[in-house]
This record gives sequence, structure tokens and C-alpha cells, in this order.
Amino acid sequence: MQLLEGILQRQTRAIARAISLVENGDSSADALMHQIFPRTGKALIIGVTGSPGAGKSTLVDKLAVHYRQKNETVGIIAVDPSSPFSGGAILGDRIRMQTLGTDPGCFIRSMATRGNLGGLARATADAVAILDAAGFDKVIVETVGVGQDEVDIVKTADVSLVVLVPGMGDDIQTIKAGIMEIGDIFVINKADHDGVLRTERELESLLSIVQRPDGWNPPIVKTVATQSRGIEELSDSIASYKVFANEHPAGNRRNAIAQQRIIELLREKLLTIALKRGIENGGLEALASQVVTKERDPYTIVEEIIKKSGIISS
Amino acid sequence: MQLLEGILQRQTRAIARAISLVENGDSSADALMHQIFPRTGKALIIGVTGSPGAGKSTLVDKLAVHYRQKNETVGIIAVDPSSPFSGGAILGDRIRMQTLGTDPGCFIRSMATRGNLGGLARATADAVAILDAAGFDKVIVETVGVGQDEVDIVKTADVSLVVLVPGMGDDIQTIKAGIMEIGDIFVINKADHDGVLRTERELESLLSIVQRPDGWNPPIVKTVATQSRGIEELSDSIASYKVFANEHPAGNRRNAIAQQRIIELLREKLLTIALKRGIENGGLEALASQVVTKERDPYTIVEEIIKKSGIISS
Repeated sequence: MQLLEGILQRQTRAIARAISLVENGDSSADALMHQIFPRTGKALIIGVTGSPGAGKSTLVDKLAVHYRQKNETVGIIAVDPSSPFSGGAILGDRIRMQTLGTDPGCFIRSMATRGNLGGLARATADAVAILDAAGFDKVIVETVGVGQDEVDIVKTADVSLVVLVPGMGDDIQTIKAGIMEIGDIFVINKADHDGVLRTERELESLLSIVQRPDGWNPPIVKTVATQSRGIEELSDSIASYKVFANEHPAGNRRNAIAQQRIIELLREKLLTIALKRGIENGGLEALASQVVTKERDPYTIVEEIIKKSGIISS
Repeated sequence: MQLLEGILQRQTRAIARAISLVENGDSSADALMHQIFPRTGKALIIGVTGSPGAGKSTLVDKLAVHYRQKNETVGIIAVDPSSPFSGGAILGDRIRMQTLGTDPGCFIRSMATRGNLGGLARATADAVAILDAAGFDKVIVETVGVGQDEVDIVKTADVSLVVLVPGMGDDIQTIKAGIMEIGDIFVINKADHDGVLRTERELESLLSIVQRPDGWNPPIVKTVATQSRGIEELSDSIASYKVFANEHPAGNRRNAIAQQRIIELLREKLLTIALKRGIENGGLEALASQVVTKERDPYTIVEEIIKKSGIISS
């Protein structure tokens, strides 16, 4: 398989093509992923999430530059579930390419939602697996917001970073339990802004409530990404957590991630089959019209599609 | 059907029980929704999204109080895809109950993700339909963040509000195209803070790029929700948009929403069937273990589950 060879040799074009295949849910992607999967597990997968405007992209870029200076290769997947654009079409991406794009030891790719059929979490996991198999030492998965999609994506990483900024003030409780629980390391970026201490203290008090099953106490790292300040410390914290996680293997976490992966994939495959078999071309729009006019309800329609697909509804 | 009667009489307990049924994906919910569906379409559904910390809850509360003063009944669904808690367990909810909770003309309910099987968008749409059938004049759906889940939920409303705060500064571009396109009305809350004019100007220039197919120009309303300032204007803007939308029916938008609704429901039903038939009890964990140890890959496992469920994979 020529494409696989190209990926294993870390050829940018082969990697980009493979990611497009999994992104489009191309059927040939299945065969490729069968080959890719046994070759994964060497890269350190770093997930980065946090509120919009927290400076995550800059932070990720500076972290990537840091790793490159230590001669480590870095793959970056920037996930934007709210954007209809993909494959490098995001504005920020073009800017980033100027710093990192010409370096063959670094690969950057944007992924976004295509239409309303979902599959972004699955496609992202596949893309990460491809970069892992390609031999990148670090694979960074960066998301735009803090919705459930982002949480699902980031919690599949080996190390999860949650990025905050000072001055979220009394609104820090909006960083809900869900986010608190996935953060292995908390970063207060823009730490030259007012209110750092207050944000830090509030974060500490929130963290003191959460009791992690593995006993890890998530550190708080302060950074000014635009000035590359705190990046070394962040890299150290990531390394420390990796050592800790190796010594305290959280079997349940890995298992939960794999369950999620199976379910995502199952959901997508089933939908593809049902839409192919249960609905004629243009049929979905006609069925939706019946819902709009209240002629029929969605429940009745879905029962019918399932019956038509040959999947007898129970 | 006693439950249906209770809902149609707007009994709080019946409504709460019905929402729990749809939230848990209970099979008896299907029969109920068949009954509910033809009785919907009278309420005005108002969707509210925006970045965390924008003060959405307070804004929604003040808007609800405003409608109550005009003797209109209000149902509120607060959706938090990142929280594992549901049914009023969210801290903010208890605080809100103090203002609005004892008023029989107002119903408040939180909805959150349960486990990793999804279905939140579907459950929210069902809950909205229940409140609509119950005869609430206004149904407000409020989300916590701006992820894809939130966008999917809010775009099914009759009117969508996007809430911003001043001082997002140069980060306003993080409010991506996806969000810009769903906003029928933009609210700059906390309009007593610095930077209002700048945020307004940036928002205006972003809005000038987006050409809506229906020709509507989304207004920008400035509010200070904590002081109930701007709420009257917001209510007027909502009413104006409703008049406009009635005169310019966006058939495509309604159809796209209905398509999304069918797909969500189909996806969930298929997954339920496949998990029930294709996996023995505790089997998912065992299969996930094989993925963790790299004994087998998720693609092979999913193929097997689909075959076992009697759905022949194509």
C-alpha cells in the first residue's frame, strides 16, 4: 500500500491525503486505518482546550517551537467544531504556516465539521492515529471552544491542558465540572494581564474540590505565550505528568476512551448505512417537509427509515 | 393518557416527568412524543448562546421576568453539554429558582449530557416540544458555551440570540462564521463595561460580511442584565424579528432543522438497537480492552458489532 508507505516515511503529502480520506469518511479509509492502528502508541498526544480568546493557538505554536528546538517532531491538529471550513481554510492557519509551515518536522492541519452528519471526533481520532503512526514525537490536538465536542476530543489525549485567562473573574464557575475533570494541567495564559492572582486562587479552590481517582494534583502553569514565557515550565509539567501517568496507569480512563471511540465509529457507520438504504435520493428533504408542515412527526419517520433499511426496530 | 392531560393543563409535575422520560430515552417517550408533536407550533422558541461568562443566565432571567410582567408564560431549558449533571442539579439553577421558581407561569429545567451516548440535541428538542404543547407563550433555550452542540441546539429556535461582552477585543474573530450565521439578534451584555463601542464596531464589520438569504439585518442590542437595562429593547427586537420572519418565511431553514432533527433521532435509535443486539452485557468494556491493548482496532470491532446486530455492513 503506497499511501501507508508514504505515511510511515512521514511524507507531508501522503499524511495530508490520508487525513482527507478519513475526514471525508471515504470507504478506502477503513482499510488504511486497519493498517495504521497497530503502528500507533509511540507519540505523546497533548490535548489543548479552553475558552475562545484564551490564546490557545499561540500557546500551541510556541510549545511546538520549543519541541522543535529539542529536535522533536510535532504534529498539530486544530479542531473547530463550529466552523464549516476545513483543511487549512481557517484564517489563523495561514498565519501559523508562516512560522511553522515550512519546517518538515512539523505538520499542521485544521479539521472542522462537514455538514450535519457529525463524525468530527472520529475523524480527529483517526487523524491523530495517522500522525502517531507517521512517527511524530508529539501530536497536539487543539480545539477552539469548550463545548462537549471539544471535551470529547481533548479527553482522548494522553495529557490534557485547559487554558484560561486572567479576569474571567466571578465567571470562572462557567468552567464547569466537566472541564475541571479533564484538565491534567491548567494554564493561565496572558499572565501579564491584571487579575492573575485572583484567577489562580479561584482555580486552586475549584481544583481542591475535585478528587482525581489517580491521585494527580493538576499543576497551574502561568504563561505569556506571545512572549514565549512559561513555555519551558509547561513542557516540564507535561513531562512530569507523563512520568506520573506511566507509574499510575489509569486503566479505566483508557478503557472509557476506547469505548467512546467504538461508539462514535458505530454511530457513524450505522447512520451511513441507514441513509443509503432507508432513504431515496432527495428523500430526506421530502421527509423533513412533512415534519415542517406537521403532516408527520420525526419519530414516525425514523421508525419508517429503520424498517426500510432492513433493521427491524424493536 | 394521563401524562399528556397533565402536560396540556401545564401541570409542573407532569411536564417535569415527561422531560425526564425523553431525557432518559425511555421507550414510552416515543408514544408520548407522537401525541405531543401535533400540539406544537404555538410557542415562540428563543435560543440564546454566547461565550461562557457573558451573563446569559441573568439575561434570560430578566427577559423571563419581563414577559411575566406582560402576563405571558415562559418555559426555560438551560442546556449544558459539558456538565454531567442534569434536572436542576446545576448550582446556578438553585439560585434562579429563588427568583422565578415559585411562579406557576414559569418553568425552568436544566439538561445536560448523560454518559457518552449523546442524544442531548434530540432530548432538548423533545423538551421544547413538550413546553410548547403545554402552552407556554415563550420557550427559551439557553446554552452554556459556543460549541457545535450549542450551535445545533440554538439554531433550531425561531429566534436566535448571540450574547457577547465588551472587551473580547481582538479575539472577536473567535466568534466564528458558524456563530455569526445563526444570530438573528446580537446582544452586547455588560454594556456598562469598557470597550463597548469597539466591540460594537467590530461586530458591525463582521456582520456586514455575512449576507443572509432572507435579507434580515441582525440588530445589535446593548444590555446590562444585572440592572435589567436594555431588556425592553431586546424584547422589541425579538418581536420585530418574529414579524419579519412571518413575512419572509425561510422554508430552507425550517427544512434544514427538520432534517437535522430526523438525523439526530435516527442516529440515536440505531445506536440503541446495535448496542442491544450486537453487544452482550459488559461486552463494550471487553471490546474496549482489546483496543487499549491494540489486540484489535476499532474499525474491525465495529464491523463485527454491525454484523452481529443483523445489519449487514455494505
